[in-house]
Amino acid sequence: MTTQQLFEQIRLKQSFLCVGLDVDLNKIPQHLLDTEDPIFEFNKAIIDATHDLAVAYKPNTAFFEAYGLKGWNSLEKTIKYLNDKHPEVFTIADAKRGDIGNTSAMYAKAFLQDMNFDSITVAPYMGKDSVEPFLAVPNKFTILLALTSNGGAFDFQTKVAGDKELYKQVLETSKTWANSQNLMYVVGATKAEYFTEIRKIIPDSFILVPGVGAQGGSLEEVCKYGMNNHVGLLVNSSRAILYAGNGTNFAEKAREEALKVQQEMHKILLDGQLAKIDL
Amino acid sequence: MTTQQLFEQIRLKQSFLCVGLDVDLNKIPQHLLDTEDPIFEFNKAIIDATHDLAVAYKPNTAFFEAYGLKGWNSLEKTIKYLNDKHPEVFTIADAKRGDIGNTSAMYAKAFLQDMNFDSITVAPYMGKDSVEPFLAVPNKFTILLALTSNGGAFDFQTKVAGDKELYKQVLETSKTWANSQNLMYVVGATKAEYFTEIRKIIPDSFILVPGVGAQGGSLEEVCKYGMNNHVGLLVNSSRAILYAGNGTNFAEKAREEALKVQQEMHKILLDGQLAKIDL
Repeated sequence: MTTQQLFEQIRLKQSFLCVGLDVDLNKIPQHLLDTEDPIFEFNKAIIDATHDLAVAYKPNTAFFEAYGLKGWNSLEKTIKYLNDKHPEVFTIADAKRGDIGNTSAMYAKAFLQDMNFDSITVAPYMGKDSVEPFLAVPNKFTILLALTSNGGAFDFQTKVAGDKELYKQVLETSKTWANSQNLMYVVGATKAEYFTEIRKIIPDSFILVPGVGAQGGSLEEVCKYGMNNHVGLLVNSSRAILYAGNGTNFAEKAREEALKVQQEMHKILLDGQLAKIDL
Repeated sequence: MTTQQLFEQIRLKQSFLCVGLDVDLNKIPQHLLDTEDPIFEFNKAIIDATHDLAVAYKPNTAFFEAYGLKGWNSLEKTIKYLNDKHPEVFTIADAKRGDIGNTSAMYAKAFLQDMNFDSITVAPYMGKDSVEPFLAVPNKFTILLALTSNGGAFDFQTKVAGDKELYKQVLETSKTWANSQNLMYVVGATKAEYFTEIRKIIPDSFILVPGVGAQGGSLEEVCKYGMNNHVGLLVNSSRAILYAGNGTNFAEKAREEALKVQQEMHKILLDGQLAKIDL
């Protein structure tokens, strides 16, 4: 998928919502536990109920690996379902990988090639040669952690490294890497006030924004400071949508919650921000 | 496993070798490809041929994930085999994970609890709350990336952040985290000259040292600057041992290569360094 196609989706759906698939068997409706693959059944229902309201889905690999072989099978089925039934949505393997070159190349094979995700989240700590193997895969995106939504972001990311904060160093340095046009970035919604500075460094890149919803970030603030003239944001919500209900009508409840977010996004695209957006 | 038990192993085997299990189906002996699970068969043969010479084994998750569901199955079989047949060795999930707290907790469950690895490698970029869920698992170790063996280590890790280089900041800050006694660190063999400074910050911790062998680091240099009075080093070799031969005698060839390293380690433990080591 190209960013132009992603932008078309955003325009069509009037949404830049990404639904995070962090499926915890302790939180999903009881009746699903009797099915053969509760994680997949849950994901399938959530996807079917929200795919006209969301432009991206983000399976979080930890929540699949936590269930071992069965979990990995659910992950493969989930991405296959997305690719087969909803090929228009943008898919993100939220895997936070990154290792020396030959190892990163194996992760890139696993997620971007074999499973055919459109993108993968990658940690920048190990630098250029740990990220470039992901960037080398054509027509795929590497979503690099810049400034994350959690409290620990202040431990290292905001420390001044060289002449600027580490997260800015990551943004600037990554632009010099081979195939940097395939980069997107993670910036947490809980750090909305940082978006102005971030947009000076990466005006055109898409930013994946976790932290709205359960983590407390504000959609309005993020849009105010982070939106560019092609929207340039994918705002993620996981728990608030997935666990909106836990009865047999959980998918309907999830849709209601996703609809609320989509309507807020539609409003943002229509008013205040409209002038800035090439719709 | 406790560090005391690990040290006992080192003393008994006169070795601080870790064998990295980075199994590439393009590199293993052809005849194994006819078996039902070539990756596991390869690992099993390597482990059986080297377990008296190595104190630790380090499956690299990328090389399993690259083969999808079958690969994940091989990973589970490999760690089960290590735990069942060779419970005295120290096991490392080389996974380079790290995410917000509730996600890191799922990775900790997957690797340290369900698969029962003794330890896991973790990236520090997301800070305290991304690492503490791993540290919270009793009797397990979190091996935090500090200064890695690759060229990209110079992109961010050696940048001065605050009043010191980022990797030093990571070392110092991590010591303040809950259950920091469960920390070990990754420092690449290709950065031997940094070990003196590193030992000032973490005199007692075990350091996992990749980069000897295929990546060109020197065992002697690493020991000269990095060893403490309980050895405190696990020196990894992957490709040089795994692919020493690729005929039907590959395990024998791997053993020969492991033996060379073990003998060099034995010599280091005996001479020059002896005075420093509590044997």
